[in-house]
Amino acid sequence: MELIEKIALMRELSEKWRGDGDIISLVPTMGFLHEGHMELLRVGREKGDRVIMSIFVNPTQFGPQEDYSRYPRDTEGDLRKARSAGVDAVFMPTVEEMYPEGFQSTVRVEGITRYLCGGSRPGHFAGVTTVVAKLFNITKPHLAIFGEKDYQQLGVIKQMVRDLNMDIEIIGVPTVRQRDGLAVSSRTSYLSSEERSSALSLKKGLDLARAMVAEGEKEPAKIINAVRQLILSHPFTEIDYITICDPEKLTDIEIIDRPCLVALAVKVGKARLIDNVMVREN
Amino acid sequence: MELIEKIALMRELSEKWRGDGDIISLVPTMGFLHEGHMELLRVGREKGDRVIMSIFVNPTQFGPQEDYSRYPRDTEGDLRKARSAGVDAVFMPTVEEMYPEGFQSTVRVEGITRYLCGGSRPGHFAGVTTVVAKLFNITKPHLAIFGEKDYQQLGVIKQMVRDLNMDIEIIGVPTVRQRDGLAVSSRTSYLSSEERSSALSLKKGLDLARAMVAEGEKEPAKIINAVRQLILSHPFTEIDYITICDPEKLTDIEIIDRPCLVALAVKVGKARLIDNVMVREN
Repeated sequence: MELIEKIALMRELSEKWRGDGDIISLVPTMGFLHEGHMELLRVGREKGDRVIMSIFVNPTQFGPQEDYSRYPRDTEGDLRKARSAGVDAVFMPTVEEMYPEGFQSTVRVEGITRYLCGGSRPGHFAGVTTVVAKLFNITKPHLAIFGEKDYQQLGVIKQMVRDLNMDIEIIGVPTVRQRDGLAVSSRTSYLSSEERSSALSLKKGLDLARAMVAEGEKEPAKIINAVRQLILSHPFTEIDYITICDPEKLTDIEIIDRPCLVALAVKVGKARLIDNVMVREN
Repeated sequence: MELIEKIALMRELSEKWRGDGDIISLVPTMGFLHEGHMELLRVGREKGDRVIMSIFVNPTQFGPQEDYSRYPRDTEGDLRKARSAGVDAVFMPTVEEMYPEGFQSTVRVEGITRYLCGGSRPGHFAGVTTVVAKLFNITKPHLAIFGEKDYQQLGVIKQMVRDLNMDIEIIGVPTVRQRDGLAVSSRTSYLSSEERSSALSLKKGLDLARAMVAEGEKEPAKIINAVRQLILSHPFTEIDYITICDPEKLTDIEIIDRPCLVALAVKVGKARLIDNVMVREN
């Protein structure tokens, strides 16, 4: 497995692989690999001849009050896991390599970044799309693999790829959960064991929403209220948003008469956690 | 010569050429080809194995009061000229092909778009960088050729390529002028013969600036004033800007103690014309 820190070298290797006719999968990560990442790598391995995993904690997608400086890191563990997953190259640039002096460009998706996390994290998605566009240009993949836990991110990236005619297939991978339902996430490392119990309320809330829809409830407000109460009945929780929305446009829906997305963001202690589920009427 | 209107077909052809090991040159144009374009095509031919010329009058880089709807067009003449220049493929998409319903992404360069034309044409350069990023992703060139008449555009595109790690070499080609000095431009087609005489004042103004610097003048304000007077002494002229600036950052300079750029934009009748020249002390 190659460990590459320089853009020029990464690009050279990708060009070589492309020249050999290899299909390249890219799995972009911020490191601190968990089972969710391992699943992305498995899919990348299955679909491509070469798997590139990037590790880059991208400062521009964190707000000033957010957890950039304390975002968990474990390079040694990450490299071990990448090797075990059959990754061919880990691309791990420095911040200076990615954003040299004088950097001044942004890639922005407008519409669907207004809602959900876009509302509570201004600038977040512009940071994501800009760094992902850069990673795409550096690693030149045929496929790029993203988790559905970050549902909006996946949609934003698909939109960017479509709008800017990037010749890359974007693949979404279902959320990996622990046995008790908690969506795996690097940020669960912030949780105390008591907080972790409260974090289960996210999935419980989504299950409640799904059950209410299955039983015929059509009014988003009623469901959102019930989910809110359920979550707030757990200590340490603070709700950022709960939404029932169109799965493509992410706009709120007024009545549940088609498949829709239930998505939420909840602060549990210091950890801001997100989760989502698709619901459909029976 | 191939004439291609669909993104998917253009991309397929470029991929094939790349697979054959061919070096691809792209010359992006808005059509209505003149001697300046022919020079870009010549450079593209010289440096690449395959030359793609795009023709697309990009609506998003025109302001609401600008000349999008009356921008001159001559597809038949353009195709004849392209063929004579040895172009391998003309990519000529419709507006709907480039901006389908739901389009919502932008590529933006911040710093150097604030000055010169960026000041008087808000949104112009975001339109340019977005469409050029799209054209790059569609035609997958190794090289892209732009004219130095649009000096700021060339700088903005170089900055985008650098910032977003696009693996494309950007080549600037010196401005082509008519015998009397007028920089060739599709927009000179708007000029009456009297207006055309007045349009010569742009180059005369630049020549005056160069002469004053050569004679030791160090104060930009004095030079700009002299150029302004010269231009306004011609009928039909209205000055948008005259600037003496750093050739990289495009910021105004306070004293001429190094090579700098003199750039101007002048409305002559209905035509907004631009021109520029590098000046250095003797």
